[in-house]
Amino acid sequence: MLTLYYATNTCALASHIALEEAGADYETRWVDFKSAEQTKPDYLKINPKGRVPALVTERGVLTETPAILAYVAQTHPEARLAPLDDPFAFAELQSFMAYLCATVHVAHAHRMRGARWADDPAAWEAMKKKVPQSVGACFDLIERKMFKGPWAMGDAYTIADPYLFTIARWMEADSVDPHAFPRVLDHRDRMAERPAVKRVLRSEGLA
Amino acid sequence: MLTLYYATNTCALASHIALEEAGADYETRWVDFKSAEQTKPDYLKINPKGRVPALVTERGVLTETPAILAYVAQTHPEARLAPLDDPFAFAELQSFMAYLCATVHVAHAHRMRGARWADDPAAWEAMKKKVPQSVGACFDLIERKMFKGPWAMGDAYTIADPYLFTIARWMEADSVDPHAFPRVLDHRDRMAERPAVKRVLRSEGLA
Repeated sequence: MLTLYYATNTCALASHIALEEAGADYETRWVDFKSAEQTKPDYLKINPKGRVPALVTERGVLTETPAILAYVAQTHPEARLAPLDDPFAFAELQSFMAYLCATVHVAHAHRMRGARWADDPAAWEAMKKKVPQSVGACFDLIERKMFKGPWAMGDAYTIADPYLFTIARWMEADSVDPHAFPRVLDHRDRMAERPAVKRVLRSEGLA
Repeated sequence: MLTLYYATNTCALASHIALEEAGADYETRWVDFKSAEQTKPDYLKINPKGRVPALVTERGVLTETPAILAYVAQTHPEARLAPLDDPFAFAELQSFMAYLCATVHVAHAHRMRGARWADDPAAWEAMKKKVPQSVGACFDLIERKMFKGPWAMGDAYTIADPYLFTIARWMEADSVDPHAFPRVLDHRDRMAERPAVKRVLRSEGLA
């Protein structure tokens, strides 16, 4: 049995959907960010980074979305969530996920996590102001160059799809107009119709 | 034949070392950041992100360090640079690399790439000021919780080692005292003595 620690409206949603799509044997534990539970000793014993997601397995705890997603795909090969036997296609998938993790998510985080990178409240405001542009530029690259269609990596649905869906759900809050990116928006709409995604959104209280 | 596009003193060093350690059939192309070559049309055809590294393969171009490193390990299994047959151990390795990519490298980048996340020069200064603390906190976590020893992931040398080495070389420029992190510093010293690492440093004009 796997246990996923998650908080609502975080990137943990991607791992949650992947587990559900894989038909994994898992349970979830909600981490209360409002009471800063992720910074308390009990949670830091699970994930010393004080973040979500964290996936507790029989062998230990895994953190970082790209690592968890690839783990779910590799341990549930029958779900065909990644091109496990093709190193080049797997690397392309990993490249897509690394961009979401290290560039798109990071650009987004400057809207409300400025204190990670500066102590001056005026700097936080300056960061916040640029988010529509920096996140918008990311989605522009995804729309024009990275998204293959009909799924992120082409014909096959992969772990990149719930990850893209998760981050694309933040566009409106980041003041990015989703209609500027019709392929990404269409993907988001189709993702929301998948039975596994519907179950997960309901379970997180998001639908 | 693989072709690695790199610039000096960037994270492309990790991929360069991994290719050398793997005994890969590769060549390198230097990208001149001083003349902003990475932003010119010729280079953007290779990597529309305008960044390094980019690895040109027979099947297409790969970008993003964690993706390239795993690709090198998977396509050169005889070099034993990753636990390819153990999804949990592979996920731990990927988690380590994702942290370097999305947290440590990103914290470091706030020293000189503030324009990515704000337009106000005063905000760039505020970001720069916090780098010793934010990068230092990352190395503190690596030193205390993540680094297994003698190599990053334990007894086996993996692709996480050149990646950690690459980013740990930036500590002094980030005003982080390496002596505060004796295990990371010892790792960096041992890495610098490896024949493959010496060859790569010489080839990049760094030794």
